[in-house]
Amino acid sequence: MTFGSFEYIMELVATAFYAISGVRLAAAKKFDWFGAYVIGFITAFGGGTVRDVLLGVDAFWMDDVNYVIATVIGLAIVIIFRKWLVRIEGTFYIFDAFGLGLFVDVGIYKTLMMGHPMWMAIMMGTVTGAMGGVLRDIFINEVPLVFRKEVYATACIMGGIVYWAVGLIDPHPIVPQMCCAVFVVVLRFLAVKYNWSFPALHYSYSGEDDETKKDKS
Amino acid sequence: MTFGSFEYIMELVATAFYAISGVRLAAAKKFDWFGAYVIGFITAFGGGTVRDVLLGVDAFWMDDVNYVIATVIGLAIVIIFRKWLVRIEGTFYIFDAFGLGLFVDVGIYKTLMMGHPMWMAIMMGTVTGAMGGVLRDIFINEVPLVFRKEVYATACIMGGIVYWAVGLIDPHPIVPQMCCAVFVVVLRFLAVKYNWSFPALHYSYSGEDDETKKDKS
Amino acid sequence: MTFGSFEYIMELVATAFYAISGVRLAAAKKFDWFGAYVIGFITAFGGGTVRDVLLGVDAFWMDDVNYVIATVIGLAIVIIFRKWLVRIEGTFYIFDAFGLGLFVDVGIYKTLMMGHPMWMAIMMGTVTGAMGGVLRDIFINEVPLVFRKEVYATACIMGGIVYWAVGLIDPHPIVPQMCCAVFVVVLRFLAVKYNWSFPALHYSYSGEDDETKKDKS
Repeated sequence: MTFGSFEYIMELVATAFYAISGVRLAAAKKFDWFGAYVIGFITAFGGGTVRDVLLGVDAFWMDDVNYVIATVIGLAIVIIFRKWLVRIEGTFYIFDAFGLGLFVDVGIYKTLMMGHPMWMAIMMGTVTGAMGGVLRDIFINEVPLVFRKEVYATACIMGGIVYWAVGLIDPHPIVPQMCCAVFVVVLRFLAVKYNWSFPALHYSYSGEDDETKKDKS
Repeated sequence: MTFGSFEYIMELVATAFYAISGVRLAAAKKFDWFGAYVIGFITAFGGGTVRDVLLGVDAFWMDDVNYVIATVIGLAIVIIFRKWLVRIEGTFYIFDAFGLGLFVDVGIYKTLMMGHPMWMAIMMGTVTGAMGGVLRDIFINEVPLVFRKEVYATACIMGGIVYWAVGLIDPHPIVPQMCCAVFVVVLRFLAVKYNWSFPALHYSYSGEDDETKKDKS
Repeated sequence: MTFGSFEYIMELVATAFYAISGVRLAAAKKFDWFGAYVIGFITAFGGGTVRDVLLGVDAFWMDDVNYVIATVIGLAIVIIFRKWLVRIEGTFYIFDAFGLGLFVDVGIYKTLMMGHPMWMAIMMGTVTGAMGGVLRDIFINEVPLVFRKEVYATACIMGGIVYWAVGLIDPHPIVPQMCCAVFVVVLRFLAVKYNWSFPALHYSYSGEDDETKKDKS
């Protein structure tokens, strides 16, 4: 399932960071602490679970209580270090970026190991990294941030392309993994720092569907 | 799939009650009757389906038309007994509580039968009981009630702990099942009666993500 | 997976149309172009993917890059022919109807081929045709249109009944498929033209759940 004990520990750390991100956003929406925990759980496990369901294997956290413990630690950190977390809010994306880089790596590697082509591995790496945040936003009833935010899911895709390109040169999995993770982290840092984002599509749409909606509501 | 004909009939009854709950909420949002039926369907089948997808087995209602008939009966009851249902609204949670207790039992038992550890069974019992309502609220575009409501998903978890504790003493599955279901039902009754709920987390969050959202929208 | 090269090509065309529908709605909500693409992707693949997960098989687009290319073409069409698409908006439902008829066919046929009963095939045909639009609306944080719109999911179900009835007379799959697809397309045309819709359920609901919500928020 995981590819070595170092990566396993890193994945647990990334799980805790994703859980913290979910708990914080849910708490800001006045969820009770249990609801906030569930949102943290979904943020941390959502991406990898969707990937594993699509790949037709057991979800990565099944039968391994350590992942659940990682999310509980995430909840505990929010409760205990609340004030400190609010203070470092502007730099929180740093932790998130490390989690993202690692989750993309895990998703790509796992999909390739199962014999799927590279384009599917890149897609699954993106799902692993970004879907948790998307599900989090759906559950707290927000438009998923990732679709309107600084380069985020695209960072996953570009990281996947780096993985593929480096893999052409050096077939040992550790080298493309390192390059991919570093690339994703650096790209996210730059994107947040310089507020990079894609242009909106500016499609002014006022057709059949919207009219219907107005009629009915 | 089910563990005896009594439980099978009870599960069908719980399915009908969950369907009624979904149809009522959707109808209150001015869905047409077909849309309301679909929401009832999702409420009744959502929890068990997510559980079965995660466990890697066919969804429990597949190839068994009785479950679908149970949801149709639920729809028919809302249409025919509309006025009576509005009158008993304050006591409707009683039916819901019985459905919840039974679904938690089914989820725990089925997960244990497949050889998973107890903590996963408790998690799957909670998913079985609570996820249908969560999906219902997502489909009607509300913040899931279960995250802000009187002790609900936590009732499932506590019921699961009762199941485990009683199972240590009496290994025959029927005894922990009875205790778990009764515990969940009683806890829900008390929670609604005395309006028990968890405190909110009070995390005032105004960081990176929200700012981004304001900039873009 | 698909049943012949003609149907395969038609399915790719339907995929592109669904993707266009998703991209247009997302762009109207000011998503950046990547976010809009993801929504197009979900609209095109959502229904078939949910069906395949429930059937316990690999999602139809896995390992077949042509489907992904079809969605990219959909995105390109929106970007390039934006003005033309806005002009034909009133008639866009025509393309959508053809996609719907075909997706229902594919869903029914595939489910029957796997040995499931007819009622499940009709349900899976409906999921294939309608779930993509439902997921699209959930991801852009709208109440799913399909539940309040002119006969849409019901068109899928009625088409499925036509498939079944014709299949009783002529067991060769191509005849019921043709009849089902034509029926769905014609029904959708008439429903949009004459603004057919189901009556709402008019269930004035002001019970436990809503009160709780008011208290907490």
